[in-house]
Amino acid sequence: MRVSELPTPALVIDAEALEHNLATMAERLPGDRLRPHVKAHKCTALAREQARHGHTGFTCATPREVLGMVAAGLGHDLLLANETVDAQRLRAMARAVDTGGGAVRITIAVDSAETVAAAAEAGIHEVLVDVDIGLPRCGCAPTDAGRIAELARNAGMEVRGVMGYEGHLMMVADGDGKQAKVDAAVDLLLQAHDAVGGSVVSSGGTGTHHLHPRVTEVQAGSYALMDTAYATLGFPFRNALSLLGTVVNVHPSWFVADVGLKALGMDHGNSAVPGATVWYHSDEHVTCAPEAGGRLADVRVGDRITVVPAHVDPTVAYHEQAYLVTGDQVLETWPIDLRGW
Amino acid sequence: MRVSELPTPALVIDAEALEHNLATMAERLPGDRLRPHVKAHKCTALAREQARHGHTGFTCATPREVLGMVAAGLGHDLLLANETVDAQRLRAMARAVDTGGGAVRITIAVDSAETVAAAAEAGIHEVLVDVDIGLPRCGCAPTDAGRIAELARNAGMEVRGVMGYEGHLMMVADGDGKQAKVDAAVDLLLQAHDAVGGSVVSSGGTGTHHLHPRVTEVQAGSYALMDTAYATLGFPFRNALSLLGTVVNVHPSWFVADVGLKALGMDHGNSAVPGATVWYHSDEHVTCAPEAGGRLADVRVGDRITVVPAHVDPTVAYHEQAYLVTGDQVLETWPIDLRGW
Repeated sequence: MRVSELPTPALVIDAEALEHNLATMAERLPGDRLRPHVKAHKCTALAREQARHGHTGFTCATPREVLGMVAAGLGHDLLLANETVDAQRLRAMARAVDTGGGAVRITIAVDSAETVAAAAEAGIHEVLVDVDIGLPRCGCAPTDAGRIAELARNAGMEVRGVMGYEGHLMMVADGDGKQAKVDAAVDLLLQAHDAVGGSVVSSGGTGTHHLHPRVTEVQAGSYALMDTAYATLGFPFRNALSLLGTVVNVHPSWFVADVGLKALGMDHGNSAVPGATVWYHSDEHVTCAPEAGGRLADVRVGDRITVVPAHVDPTVAYHEQAYLVTGDQVLETWPIDLRGW
Repeated sequence: MRVSELPTPALVIDAEALEHNLATMAERLPGDRLRPHVKAHKCTALAREQARHGHTGFTCATPREVLGMVAAGLGHDLLLANETVDAQRLRAMARAVDTGGGAVRITIAVDSAETVAAAAEAGIHEVLVDVDIGLPRCGCAPTDAGRIAELARNAGMEVRGVMGYEGHLMMVADGDGKQAKVDAAVDLLLQAHDAVGGSVVSSGGTGTHHLHPRVTEVQAGSYALMDTAYATLGFPFRNALSLLGTVVNVHPSWFVADVGLKALGMDHGNSAVPGATVWYHSDEHVTCAPEAGGRLADVRVGDRITVVPAHVDPTVAYHEQAYLVTGDQVLETWPIDLRGW
């Protein structure tokens, strides 16, 4: 199949850019130093490429991501870096381990007496203590981590260590004292680790992946596909993900293509259309003004355009499949098979 | 099943509020005066309720919505109120008519020589001319509508009339000269209709449904479920759609529930959580501060909360199903079966 024949809007992954990103990260954080986060792509075929680059442990955000990775044979060492008290989903993950014949390992984040109790009740074997290191979201206080670990051990679970996500620092510029800020967050995590024990200290994301010599593993995900938000940070990762759209209307002052709100995560704002200025998205459309003299200046109905999302994760979650492409050739169709919860 | 047992995040439709909205609109715009837009809910079960209230013609935004409505036996009179030059999808819609034994009618919007040619080539029988009446998106110039209609008739297609969507006026307050603004848009549409002919003049949305005595039908969709954006306009429609979430973390200053960016369309901004102030959403979470003394002041891990989306259409598009509920009872599970393109 040719890219120019794809039905639109189509989620398109540039094979060379993806390979460049995976190889670059595998050099920076080889093997188990990286625990790629599958929430950024929700695609077991892409996770398999990450495993091929040496990363065999993965981070997940939802039970369905965990179970989908197990079903794809990628369940060697999965971390649900998120809290849940859903008894049915916890039991499903416990069963996946118990029936996995030693090939499946699932570790669940806990940060409270309730999440420990729910995990233990469901038969979960291994947990990490999630620690609040500055992002107002999940995680216990660093000073409470020892107590949570003790609760988990008393409930018969193995405590593998700690995790903490400094999400508030992802978009800080390097020049703005980023290393010192990350170090302060890691200080809190290591303080918790002293009280918790275990071999794992898990933290970070694409925005801080280069600043984490003191943790055992980094949970980056966005580096594989990238987006316009992360592109501002100057990392050596290329934009690998775009939406292919078709122009459906051309007006003297604007043109319209079929890439709308239901094809794009919008929390980081409008997408970017190279060669045009995006005015706005509506449910099924993007309205743009071509840049004067640019390559879209004489755009016509039926032409294909490229739309680059501002935030990769909620964009991918809208799509049933992505197309791995090189030039005009579609190499593979990859199901986005980890959607939902 | 009980609402309190639903896995979360869950898309929940309040049965009484939905019935109130459908009955209220059916009184205001009975029968064929309303052509409900299915893009707002992407759910044939909900469309069937709209048909039960007397509206048997429907508006769609994508070929998949059209074909899904046909498959559900709701293809009596479908309008694709959107342009496409996708030959395969146009042919699929033409086939649905040709094999429908007279029970399926599909009308496609056209606004250019290219969209007319694509429809004719695919074997489409009926079109409407889409007219630009002020929203910078699709639609031909009102003065060009006669030419487009002639192109369509010369290509052997029936031209049923005109449509125009004044989306830029949806959120204007009634007191702010809204009727006059809608009238000016309708003037353009009627000018086009003079040149095009046909029996259909289709326009409007929930935000202008009450201001359209001069068109033959209104394309409202959001009225059925509503959202926080439309709620500001003071219509007699109730919020019928919410996300059910589970609290997964409680901190002294905030709490966190499992309703994030992948469960909510974010183009209209944050959702609302009754009893709390929403700080922000991340991929799988909402972080909120409880209102002092409010009912969420002593919220605990495992508690259920209600999250009201800011924009219903892109929210629904993230979900596999919605639950029709009354009180704590789940009455029905409705697949969101019109997702995608």
